Amino acid sequence: MQTKEKPIGVFDSGLGGLTVVKKLIEQLPNEDIVYFGDTARVPYGDRSRETILEYTRQDMAFLLSQDVKAVCIACNTADSMARTEMEKLYTLPIVGAVLPAAKTAVRVTLNRKIGVIGTHATVASGAYKNSIASLDPACTVYSVACPLLVPLVEEGRFHKGDAVTESVLADYLAPLREKGIDTIILGCTHYPLLYDMVASLLPGVFIICSGFASVDYLKNELAGRNLLNDRQTPGKTHFFVSDAPEKFAANASLFLGRPIGGQVKKVSVGQGVCD
Amino acid sequence: MQTKEKPIGVFDSGLGGLTVVKKLIEQLPNEDIVYFGDTARVPYGDRSRETILEYTRQDMAFLLSQDVKAVCIACNTADSMARTEMEKLYTLPIVGAVLPAAKTAVRVTLNRKIGVIGTHATVASGAYKNSIASLDPACTVYSVACPLLVPLVEEGRFHKGDAVTESVLADYLAPLREKGIDTIILGCTHYPLLYDMVASLLPGVFIICSGFASVDYLKNELAGRNLLNDRQTPGKTHFFVSDAPEKFAANASLFLGRPIGGQVKKVSVGQGVCD
Repeated sequence: MQTKEKPIGVFDSGLGGLTVVKKLIEQLPNEDIVYFGDTARVPYGDRSRETILEYTRQDMAFLLSQDVKAVCIACNTADSMARTEMEKLYTLPIVGAVLPAAKTAVRVTLNRKIGVIGTHATVASGAYKNSIASLDPACTVYSVACPLLVPLVEEGRFHKGDAVTESVLADYLAPLREKGIDTIILGCTHYPLLYDMVASLLPGVFIICSGFASVDYLKNELAGRNLLNDRQTPGKTHFFVSDAPEKFAANASLFLGRPIGGQVKKVSVGQGVCD
Repeated sequence: MQTKEKPIGVFDSGLGGLTVVKKLIEQLPNEDIVYFGDTARVPYGDRSRETILEYTRQDMAFLLSQDVKAVCIACNTADSMARTEMEKLYTLPIVGAVLPAAKTAVRVTLNRKIGVIGTHATVASGAYKNSIASLDPACTVYSVACPLLVPLVEEGRFHKGDAVTESVLADYLAPLREKGIDTIILGCTHYPLLYDMVASLLPGVFIICSGFASVDYLKNELAGRNLLNDRQTPGKTHFFVSDAPEKFAANASLFLGRPIGGQVKKVSVGQGVCD
């Protein structure tokens, strides 16, 4: 098999990365995809750098075992904490969530005040701040950790009019509004489901979904290396998780926008650490 | 060393079990305690039975390696899903959260309508329902999974007057109020911090904190086997976690009611699965 015919690997700590898979299927319908969600150890967002690094290494090793031609780190937390390390370990293209979103933000901001919302670990890593500073040092980045948003989205409380989520989100976004940002990065794969709520709370602010930016980035990256699959038939997506495949399948449509339409396999990745 | 001089082991998926340690120190001040919080894989409440069983086995193995004389499974999820299996594997006294709370509930209820709140896994296990049915088949148990309460408590949003938590909790408790329960079991180690809010929302309802009931139970169990430490000096508590010991130490006082006053050591338990 030629390298270009191999699948694209995508991983996330859980379900959220399916928002990226959805976009990937829209943009590159003929590619095969292997998705891995680390549902036995989700969420990553409150863990230490050391642990996130170890988990990311194991997630990557699993995708590599599936013979992928490129990896998309959908999880902002893993990307923020571990991508530099992963690029040292592997030579295949690795596209994360942070850099593509940072590039888009720098391109669209007019007043150079950019807001970022994400998990504790993503914010603590400074990854968005550093990426944006390296692209345009005149930009100022304001970051807010929003640990309650993932549980709220996973409980289905993301519809406009949900008073609890609107109240929590308004609290998180208040300092960003006060700073007068004109651009915000939704730095977590769950947050696209809160797009409408964010838009209501920050009228006139340009909203960037980190995962969507990374799909464009990956497309260019593959094209540049002549790695786009040039067949004319639709690709297949294979789903793997580390726990509770039935639950993953049941909740997937929330993020994927359609039923999963295939088997979800359970694999063990944690044991990799002992090899 | 005589068996009675050995420490009591307590484990939880994370921080919450410290509410049990607090009670244990009050009730049995001269005992040494070894606490393990599986902070690298918290929370357990949304995982499959199979994974919870595997994690519990590893947590137990760690405590056994510390030469404990008894184990308190503070985590309701682990106790609900895995205690029966653990009792097959080990001969030392294992006290969980469910049975002691169920016994208290059956003793205090007048109308035999008992409410239980806990994680998805605890509720799905049916452990409370089955325990109560075996003690008094005339009791009816109404259970509600409350997945947002742990994240809200961990974000410090448990004080009376927090509109978000009050609203979420009111939604969860509404069906229990409608059923006319006179007793409720707070079936998760985080929920004692919500005691006042529950009391306001369910006036006149008897509230049982599962972990506190298990401390009384453990005390009797050790006394019955002549395993209480009879020295007259205060015991020591040793804290172990699988991730982010500094963060654990920083947040511990929320649950322990005082600073941790000692070192928190990081240990690796997941690797045990490969042995």
